[in-house]
Amino acid sequence: MVSEFEFIHNLKSKYALDRIGDDCAVLPKDDTTDLLLTADLLAEDVDFRLDWSEPELLGQKALAVSLSDIAAMGGTPKWSMLSIGVSEKLWKTDFLERFYDGWHKLAALHEVELVGGDVSKTSDKLVIDSVVGGEVKKGEAILRSGANAGEAIFVTGFLGGAAAGLKLLESGVRLDSSLSAPTKHLLLRQLQPIPQTRTGATIQDNGLATSMIDISDGLSSDLSHILHSSNVGARIWAKDIPVEPAINDLSDFDLDTLDLALNGGEDFELLFTVDKKNISACQDLGFHMIGEIASDEGIIELIGENKMEILQPKGYRHF
Amino acid sequence: MVSEFEFIHNLKSKYALDRIGDDCAVLPKDDTTDLLLTADLLAEDVDFRLDWSEPELLGQKALAVSLSDIAAMGGTPKWSMLSIGVSEKLWKTDFLERFYDGWHKLAALHEVELVGGDVSKTSDKLVIDSVVGGEVKKGEAILRSGANAGEAIFVTGFLGGAAAGLKLLESGVRLDSSLSAPTKHLLLRQLQPIPQTRTGATIQDNGLATSMIDISDGLSSDLSHILHSSNVGARIWAKDIPVEPAINDLSDFDLDTLDLALNGGEDFELLFTVDKKNISACQDLGFHMIGEIASDEGIIELIGENKMEILQPKGYRHF
Repeated sequence: MVSEFEFIHNLKSKYALDRIGDDCAVLPKDDTTDLLLTADLLAEDVDFRLDWSEPELLGQKALAVSLSDIAAMGGTPKWSMLSIGVSEKLWKTDFLERFYDGWHKLAALHEVELVGGDVSKTSDKLVIDSVVGGEVKKGEAILRSGANAGEAIFVTGFLGGAAAGLKLLESGVRLDSSLSAPTKHLLLRQLQPIPQTRTGATIQDNGLATSMIDISDGLSSDLSHILHSSNVGARIWAKDIPVEPAINDLSDFDLDTLDLALNGGEDFELLFTVDKKNISACQDLGFHMIGEIASDEGIIELIGENKMEILQPKGYRHF
Repeated sequence: MVSEFEFIHNLKSKYALDRIGDDCAVLPKDDTTDLLLTADLLAEDVDFRLDWSEPELLGQKALAVSLSDIAAMGGTPKWSMLSIGVSEKLWKTDFLERFYDGWHKLAALHEVELVGGDVSKTSDKLVIDSVVGGEVKKGEAILRSGANAGEAIFVTGFLGGAAAGLKLLESGVRLDSSLSAPTKHLLLRQLQPIPQTRTGATIQDNGLATSMIDISDGLSSDLSHILHSSNVGARIWAKDIPVEPAINDLSDFDLDTLDLALNGGEDFELLFTVDKKNISACQDLGFHMIGEIASDEGIIELIGENKMEILQPKGYRHF
């Protein structure tokens, strides 16, 4: 069975679709600005479950995942087209009103305007397509294809928290007042991701990154996208992976912390590569250096205390 | 239960969403051009059935419905973001490949570039969100809100064919070589709608329309949208409604021809209002004059041979 990445690759080749394959499409807008476009389809019982959270948080997440793609290009989000398909049963509740309330709360923070979309019926499950348009200075969008051997690899925050939160949700844990602080934190990493748009713009404004992507599928998978787009490889130091601290505070669950950090998705942190002269600037901004770009295309060497292994991309994929 | 139109109206008021409520959102692009944006969500077993047609035709229709919205603003389509959610069962077939083939066939005709989107999994049904971006000269998009009392009302083609085709499909008729020409024509009006982008651009270039909409929900419903947006009413002459000729050629089915033309959706013809001085130009272009704009807001008078009735908007709605 063809994977979703292979399917999109085949589509690109067959129809010569040059603008597909990064976090956003980049189109010319005017003399000084490029338009950024991204779409994220979220399906009930595949990407989320209705009993996992309040409608407001789902509305926030639907927008957040697309804002994260704009952030990964170093852009500023401007507007959104939100399409939502809902069953008649859900239509009769206050679900949509609360969903849009959550959506608008995050949109207001980022000054994103809802300019259109569609409200339609489905026979059963909820489905959401979130399209966001943004802007970036002409020719200055940060692509996946700009990494060079010898550059450093950075991530903006801690990894594995959203995947740990997903495991908690799948084992029946829900947000309520009885939760410990770390448990609540992990659930919110999954249910209420924070898009790194201001951080992405800072990286762009200061010319710090040669390539960038957001961590939506998982570090191993998303790093692999950069490597294939840039025709390079990578060496990652296991001890420097910034594992989400709250995971270690949970003793009740048998979680493989490093595996979650390497292969868990949906942290929506930024992963980017940095010319050596900018390493100290990135460290001053609190970003985590986790490795360096090497020359063997697509190969990720994971360097542990006493061993080296080749890391296979194992992040989330639908197909 | 609130209707989908009321829901969107409430959303517009609550969050002051000024750009919502026409066929497309209009955003500034550069000094001479505005950007047009539209989204259409299509859900399996609500908006279409997989056994109604080949995947290629469904791909074409997914794009056509959005091109029609660009046409209704007098714009030119430029790019698309296509999101598709598909079950694992359908993923394993050649459905998507054939769907994209059909999509690209129509896209090539209209020089529309696929710039992004999403391919994702659903637990069961197929869902498609078609987003199209287009362009129009700055400030010259044809809105729903420009109609004035005394102007003429025109439609570009024949009405009711798509709704008749839907009834045929629902009664089990399928496209095959044994069909009579009118039956095949009606099925294709439903399964392979032709977006009127070139006609819409002609109307725009020649400044012929004061307001315009595409007939997606049905004449009564779509005319009602123009009337409410423009704070006017309308008088429609029953004898001048351009009923799809193929419907009358079908004797085997008990179809209410005028009802289909007034209330059937998905013909994707253009409905527009015209200053008196441009009536003959529109007639020369083969458009059909069906009535005139009056002053009573939202009221549609349907004038028959011996009677007048008030027409209620009865077009398609999901909720």
